[in-house]
Amino acid sequence: MTDVAPYAERRRRAVEALEGAGLDGLVVTPGPDLRYLTGYDALPFERLTMLRLAPAKDPVMLAPGLERAAAAAADGIEGIELTTWADGDDVYAAAAALLGPGRYAVSDRMWSVHLLGFQSVVRDATFVAASRGLPPLRAVKDAGEVAALARAGAAADLVFASIVTSPFAGRTERDVAIELGELLRANGHETAGFAIVGSGPNGASPHHDAEDRRIRPGEAVVLDFGGFADGYGSDITRTVVVGEPPAGFEEAYETVRRAQQAAFETVRPGVACENVDRAARAVVEAAGFGERFIHRTGHGIGLETHEDPYIVEGNRMPLREGMTFSIEPGIYLEDRFGVRIEDIVAVTADGARRLNEAPRDLQIVE
Amino acid sequence: MTDVAPYAERRRRAVEALEGAGLDGLVVTPGPDLRYLTGYDALPFERLTMLRLAPAKDPVMLAPGLERAAAAAADGIEGIELTTWADGDDVYAAAAALLGPGRYAVSDRMWSVHLLGFQSVVRDATFVAASRGLPPLRAVKDAGEVAALARAGAAADLVFASIVTSPFAGRTERDVAIELGELLRANGHETAGFAIVGSGPNGASPHHDAEDRRIRPGEAVVLDFGGFADGYGSDITRTVVVGEPPAGFEEAYETVRRAQQAAFETVRPGVACENVDRAARAVVEAAGFGERFIHRTGHGIGLETHEDPYIVEGNRMPLREGMTFSIEPGIYLEDRFGVRIEDIVAVTADGARRLNEAPRDLQIVE
Repeated sequence: MTDVAPYAERRRRAVEALEGAGLDGLVVTPGPDLRYLTGYDALPFERLTMLRLAPAKDPVMLAPGLERAAAAAADGIEGIELTTWADGDDVYAAAAALLGPGRYAVSDRMWSVHLLGFQSVVRDATFVAASRGLPPLRAVKDAGEVAALARAGAAADLVFASIVTSPFAGRTERDVAIELGELLRANGHETAGFAIVGSGPNGASPHHDAEDRRIRPGEAVVLDFGGFADGYGSDITRTVVVGEPPAGFEEAYETVRRAQQAAFETVRPGVACENVDRAARAVVEAAGFGERFIHRTGHGIGLETHEDPYIVEGNRMPLREGMTFSIEPGIYLEDRFGVRIEDIVAVTADGARRLNEAPRDLQIVE
Repeated sequence: MTDVAPYAERRRRAVEALEGAGLDGLVVTPGPDLRYLTGYDALPFERLTMLRLAPAKDPVMLAPGLERAAAAAADGIEGIELTTWADGDDVYAAAAALLGPGRYAVSDRMWSVHLLGFQSVVRDATFVAASRGLPPLRAVKDAGEVAALARAGAAADLVFASIVTSPFAGRTERDVAIELGELLRANGHETAGFAIVGSGPNGASPHHDAEDRRIRPGEAVVLDFGGFADGYGSDITRTVVVGEPPAGFEEAYETVRRAQQAAFETVRPGVACENVDRAARAVVEAAGFGERFIHRTGHGIGLETHEDPYIVEGNRMPLREGMTFSIEPGIYLEDRFGVRIEDIVAVTADGARRLNEAPRDLQIVE
């Protein structure tokens, strides 16, 4: 995963956060939190795998018997007591023995079937989502993680450099999406997670799924794609035009480009997340497109594509060095086109650096 | 997805199940339940998307504003009232207005952050996992779904036919896993979800992750792979040998092959799931390997790789025509090798048919 794998240190910080929040434990099921704290890349399944961290107690992992060898081989398993259960056992009773009365944080992504299992069996216990009850565990990246995100971003840049040399006119959105996936994998991604290709009016739906619509000359195409390389996410958006831009496009594009730049220039340690959102929004509003910028400015990225910190009005969390997130303002004109430009950025000691450097000036494709 | 897309009928049956269970509603977030009930293939994210079904009320979907167009374009959206919320809104308050006091089933896979959001805001409401509070919604497949699973299974068979023509000796497990993924995609899979390659002693860990271990002559290799084609899952396991089998292998292999066959022959409507498990286990126990068969015999498959019905001791659910699941007994000899043979089967009017037909007699590879 990362060059350094300081799992024990991450667990120590998590327990410190629990103490600070007055919580009795953190319960983690497969997903990014588990990978972060143990290096164990278990699939989320109906069979319960859980890690319990608690102040003044040793960490314990409860795993299905048939996963014992896989769990025991995880990079960060040292220092964690591993216990197992077998198909047919009452696993929530086994979990209850590890929890007891108290107030627990649980991974946001924990499947509800597991949380409800805990709630039905563990006496006098209450639960809170980790993102609500604790400061974000994974928001501040270490140097190895920022380097991994930078590699993923550089790979996404290469994918963009390659896709703009392909013809667009006459191909379907799905064709382009498939090529983006292949290019991501060819550039070192183990997962090509998503590829939004929104041509013409479809671009006005920010999360449009690629479909069989054929791309035509004179249309704008929103390309938003990414995945995971060495476990860390990429996520980039560029909007290209096939030949001549449609009426009104250039003004919208230039507005989004300036909004993205303005937000980027706001980033430095201590600035509230919402202020980055406001910086982008102010530019879009001043240009008269405020109503057409229908989403937040960005989201954190790391082991998940969307994670803390969220760059949204109301989030007063101060940025810290090592935080990584997207800046992706957009303008969406129904029945006409969409424009979005997105880079991942990392907060540095005195500002920010972009982890995407694909050109932000308008690219014309064929 | 399927040839027929009877979403309204599925929702009608879900509401009927709610009434039968005395529940006031079903709350579904992105995932297989949402795809099944609406055709909407939304990514699970921190932004809440939910469908509420309730007796004597029209279905309602609450979605983020920026997903409105995507949700409105879903195949099965007709007849569902679509409402949206915007970044910055209190989405759980909006959800509470759709719920009110009562007892609700929720999707098993709903992220806990959302369930905890509901629990904190909705007054006098209790929640139960759908798999605990309702009969399985998706376990009985319609003809279109069985056909989709059969196509996915046939594609997995082709992948196996191809991989055994590749050399194994000298390649790493990871090399073979990557080739399996490429072959799945080349054979019409949109997702190559997993590829377990367990060579030699690694085969004794049922869910071993492919790693950099080089495969050697004289070793058994467990190959368990699959993904999704047209939204429906494939999942097949075959165990091959590189040249001469290791000592004791053939007896274990033959035992597993017979156990798999015995379980298959047990399948017909009305038989309890646990009886299929027992049929496989009886063969393995009689051969003296009972302690080495360390997992249940199988799991349902459809829009998820693992779903109801589970073929496990204690599950008295009677099989019904149209149910589809894996039969995958195994024997795991620590430090030596593993053996597993897995097919997907579909329950027919008077028995079962296999959706995998790759050879079950031992295949020798190079």
